[in-house]
Amino acid sequence: MDELPGSFGTSASLALRLGQTIFSFASLLFMCFDVQFYSYTAFCYLVTVMGLVVPWSLTLVVVDAYSVFVKFLPRQPRTILIVVLGDWALSYLLLSAACSAASVTDLLFDAGGSYCPAKLCSRYQLSAAMAFLSWFLCQGSFLFNLWLLPSL
Amino acid sequence: MDELPGSFGTSASLALRLGQTIFSFASLLFMCFDVQFYSYTAFCYLVTVMGLVVPWSLTLVVVDAYSVFVKFLPRQPRTILIVVLGDWALSYLLLSAACSAASVTDLLFDAGGSYCPAKLCSRYQLSAAMAFLSWFLCQGSFLFNLWLLPSL
Repeated sequence: MDELPGSFGTSASLALRLGQTIFSFASLLFMCFDVQFYSYTAFCYLVTVMGLVVPWSLTLVVVDAYSVFVKFLPRQPRTILIVVLGDWALSYLLLSAACSAASVTDLLFDAGGSYCPAKLCSRYQLSAAMAFLSWFLCQGSFLFNLWLLPSL
Repeated sequence: MDELPGSFGTSASLALRLGQTIFSFASLLFMCFDVQFYSYTAFCYLVTVMGLVVPWSLTLVVVDAYSVFVKFLPRQPRTILIVVLGDWALSYLLLSAACSAASVTDLLFDAGGSYCPAKLCSRYQLSAAMAFLSWFLCQGSFLFNLWLLPSL
């Protein structure tokens, strides 16, 4: 069971974490760059959640990269438990943030005109799409680590 | 392990399922009753999801009530697996629908005036709140049954 692909410390896990970091950072950038996101609650929430997800994923990218390229770290049940609980909480936050941002973007898109200039609106859409992708990868990491947990 | 409270066929499970049914039905009623919900995508999504959750919860209320009051049904791993998978899928749908409805309601509330007469807006808010409560109970049922699954 120690070589379950996708679990903490394997190269598949590193790929998942890299994907999470890239997608959440892209979502944050599309939302923040030259956009007045702070007039909408849902977009502020998305930015807050991404502010939690980016450092979390980045830390785990570093740990996984160390484990893959330098020296395989021993897996302690307590560490895996913390990772599983963190992923669990963050995946709910990511899903809720992505859904809120997507629904608000859809509403603004329908309203059209001054509420949603074409350029801004497509940025909001991209940001929500990136948040969904990030949620999907986070869910994957969570499930792989949860599967590993009982065997430790 | 057969008497784990909250798992399939116990009275705690019956209470959880009854709560789910009541809250999702209330959410559906607040959204549909005399309200033109179909002009907003997020509200249509909420209604669709509730149209799935209400029959699912109602079926499980009947099964649980039979198991508690008439005759304890034997638990087959396959049945529990189906219940767990169903709850898992529905809890994601419920969370996403509740978040979408809540964020759109918040946006309409800020826009105010003709977009959101006070009476309609408070109904939308109540509907979203009920959807969140329903998600919370569905998550509870899912976790209790997931806990039971490996012991079968």
